[in-house]
Amino acid sequence: MVQYTDLDSSFAALSDATRRGVLEQLGRADASITELAGKFHMTLTGMKKHVGVLEQAGLVTTQKAGRVRTCKLGLRGLEEEAAWIERHRLLWDARFNELDKVVEELKRKEKADAPKNRE
Amino acid sequence: MVQYTDLDSSFAALSDATRRGVLEQLGRADASITELAGKFHMTLTGMKKHVGVLEQAGLVTTQKAGRVRTCKLGLRGLEEEAAWIERHRLLWDARFNELDKVVEELKRKEKADAPKNRE
Repeated sequence: MVQYTDLDSSFAALSDATRRGVLEQLGRADASITELAGKFHMTLTGMKKHVGVLEQAGLVTTQKAGRVRTCKLGLRGLEEEAAWIERHRLLWDARFNELDKVVEELKRKEKADAPKNRE
Repeated sequence: MVQYTDLDSSFAALSDATRRGVLEQLGRADASITELAGKFHMTLTGMKKHVGVLEQAGLVTTQKAGRVRTCKLGLRGLEEEAAWIERHRLLWDARFNELDKVVEELKRKEKADAPKNRE
């Protein structure tokens, strides 16, 4: 069973362009908070906040060695999030296919009725 | 190019269990605000707020006929969101495969060095 609180925190973490950018960056290489702050033109405090949100959601882990805090991708790989979205897309497709069928049915009826109208 | 503001609003919309529930419900059948409020044990005002967030993100559309506002799934089917998550998962897999390789390499070296240590 999907844990809804997990989905809450991960989707909230993904709802910010900087945080998505940090995940993309860490997908290429680990980075320190200072490097990330520089890359995204932010203050250290601002970046620490964003990394904190990603860490809370389990999407990033950090480790401090001396004065440097290194960030890397966390152990969660967004499987549950992908599964939820995929499930929604299937429902969405089904709903719109249903609508298509209704439209087709209406068209067919119109066609069948057309000769009568001409009489 | 992905529009980041769209992803911001849709991921934010998905970060709440009730709003995800509403999307699942509308995936099965259209529903009025009143029906949704009843189903999720909420006030009309609370449900209107949630539907508003989903509407802003393009995930739901609403239509008023008389006193009843009917909600249905919007035209956006979370394709961009699915694509972003998929891209992240590929990066994530690649990072962890890289780590696996480093561990394998270390194991190989240890094995190769082992006979020398015994001499």
